[in-house]
Amino acid sequence: MTNTMSNTRRYVILAPGVFSTRASKTAHGVVAYAKDPTVAVIDPSQDGKEVRDVVSYLDSNAPIVANIEASLRYKPTSLLVGVAPPGGALPADWRREIITALEAGLEVVSGLHDVLAEDPDFVAAAKRGNASIWDVRVPPKTPIFSGTAWAVKPFVLLTVGSDCSVGKMTVSLELTRAAKDRGRNPEFIATGQTGIMIAGKGIAIDRVIADFAPGATETLVTTHAPETDILFVEGQGGINHAAYAPVTLALLYGSAPDALILVHNAARTEIDGLGTPILSYSELINLYERLAATVKPVKVIGIAINTSALSDMEAKHAIQAAQEETGLPADDLVRFGPYAFYDAIAQQLYEKKPLRKGKTLPPTL
Amino acid sequence: MTNTMSNTRRYVILAPGVFSTRASKTAHGVVAYAKDPTVAVIDPSQDGKEVRDVVSYLDSNAPIVANIEASLRYKPTSLLVGVAPPGGALPADWRREIITALEAGLEVVSGLHDVLAEDPDFVAAAKRGNASIWDVRVPPKTPIFSGTAWAVKPFVLLTVGSDCSVGKMTVSLELTRAAKDRGRNPEFIATGQTGIMIAGKGIAIDRVIADFAPGATETLVTTHAPETDILFVEGQGGINHAAYAPVTLALLYGSAPDALILVHNAARTEIDGLGTPILSYSELINLYERLAATVKPVKVIGIAINTSALSDMEAKHAIQAAQEETGLPADDLVRFGPYAFYDAIAQQLYEKKPLRKGKTLPPTL
Repeated sequence: MTNTMSNTRRYVILAPGVFSTRASKTAHGVVAYAKDPTVAVIDPSQDGKEVRDVVSYLDSNAPIVANIEASLRYKPTSLLVGVAPPGGALPADWRREIITALEAGLEVVSGLHDVLAEDPDFVAAAKRGNASIWDVRVPPKTPIFSGTAWAVKPFVLLTVGSDCSVGKMTVSLELTRAAKDRGRNPEFIATGQTGIMIAGKGIAIDRVIADFAPGATETLVTTHAPETDILFVEGQGGINHAAYAPVTLALLYGSAPDALILVHNAARTEIDGLGTPILSYSELINLYERLAATVKPVKVIGIAINTSALSDMEAKHAIQAAQEETGLPADDLVRFGPYAFYDAIAQQLYEKKPLRKGKTLPPTL
Repeated sequence: MTNTMSNTRRYVILAPGVFSTRASKTAHGVVAYAKDPTVAVIDPSQDGKEVRDVVSYLDSNAPIVANIEASLRYKPTSLLVGVAPPGGALPADWRREIITALEAGLEVVSGLHDVLAEDPDFVAAAKRGNASIWDVRVPPKTPIFSGTAWAVKPFVLLTVGSDCSVGKMTVSLELTRAAKDRGRNPEFIATGQTGIMIAGKGIAIDRVIADFAPGATETLVTTHAPETDILFVEGQGGINHAAYAPVTLALLYGSAPDALILVHNAARTEIDGLGTPILSYSELINLYERLAATVKPVKVIGIAINTSALSDMEAKHAIQAAQEETGLPADDLVRFGPYAFYDAIAQQLYEKKPLRKGKTLPPTL
């Protein structure tokens, strides 16, 4: 099943025993950034507290309750299963919460690898409650890339990375917020699980069949509200990441960006888990720009650095070093806020861009 | 279902009304290159002729017959459906042939988009005949890329292209043949539909979920006979092809090649169907080598040119121009045979290569 709610959701988040841990990263992202409010969290181990008591950097007083029944008084529309349970398989008490939610008529939004809409127990419960299930990882059918992205009217800004998990989604979200606060009509384009839960829509490009990944991305940037003047596309992976670079390239070609922001984690020197080297800013800029040059030319216009592992002094040095190496604006958009960086790049956004009419590819190779 | 036959197949090819046309390209490739013989072709419009009467460049006297019943005297083990029927959907007379073949106990090998093993009529017929169905496009489950490809013992040679459909599979097959004739133990690694039918095994990388495409490629190069001393990996797409480049990159990283052969069609100046420019040899070499440089360094060691659209004189000029631009051996391996080119690059193959132990990636992002 796909996203069936077009109006605002009110989320209750399922995270029994784990809401305070790193395993709940997706849930924390939803509380921090989602356009839809989180009205309660289910975690019996923190029953009676508020979100901000448990995760200090989240500015939310949503109550933490013991079970789905206790959450209903806060009038949620949707149960969000954003946390993979330890060990992988869905424990019996999680199943019970999901079934109870569906029977109560709540939509269930799941980012689990297991497809809930293929589970007969959940399907039956959804039928009883006249409720729907949205497995956000399951991509819709989309066509092969055809070049329609080359004629998209809003300005398209894609974040690209030095590695996976460096902060590309967060940078895209912070820039979306800054653009909105500066009076623009931006839209955040979600390309991964957490981003989709935050935006309430999107496609997990890493789950699309390889041949269709650029086309799925093209579908995302060609579908936007008419008043939108800039699309901030969430990047994925890194161009020299042996496992995830194909997804990175699908986004670089499929979203047909008008500008790139390069995102790096200053504490990282090796590609996560593989041990191959992280490229320098100059090498990354050169590689991304050369790949795009004959498809749709694009420039890196700024460097966003995740300095969360550094002291204030170290962070300032890392930002200055990036500016000196590249001659581009650089900043940590979480540590120092997005506005200085946004204002530094703003004159290059919204420029009248050359539109290009794409030709149509044959339906198959 | 997957490939269930480990012994030699004897193919009867289903191509009613279309065996003489370009639509039967896959079938022609199987007749020309497959390790398994084609013992008959079904095409009532050519009944009574031999394959070489209908497709002049195929050196095969296999008979063309009217239907599956008439083919049985040639003792086929497998019906090969290598041709997409005009219009897409499977016509009734094709369905009848497939059902009759399954009831007669023949394996059915299909390269169609439609998954035959999900069709209740075919499943029932297979049960009645105790026969199997192999949908070659459906990939098996494979893990995320982990770096085990970096420790593969045989030399790995990957073909990379200036575009899709330029002849990468053919070049890999011709080099496999030359290496065998020179006394080596090569293996052709199939990564697309036609290649899989020719090799009798392989994975259609373009049909793998994007996140798993490098890992599927890694599985292919880490699974080979112990005596194999070189793997010729069939390339896909082109690195600046907006629709198919993610698959190209999955092969470049996933197969961890020790050398690359760049393949180009001399008549091509634009990316097929998209109208963006084809890169020069120098630019392509630079891009492929730079992408691989920090993952596993590799060099382009030769240029294979498809000159089928050129005169003899033009072909020689095109080959000479490629040699002068790149300083590398260049040739058309179909027009002039694979041996001169193979001998020119042979000293760089089979060199003792540095093995590198990969680390293991976490199972999910």
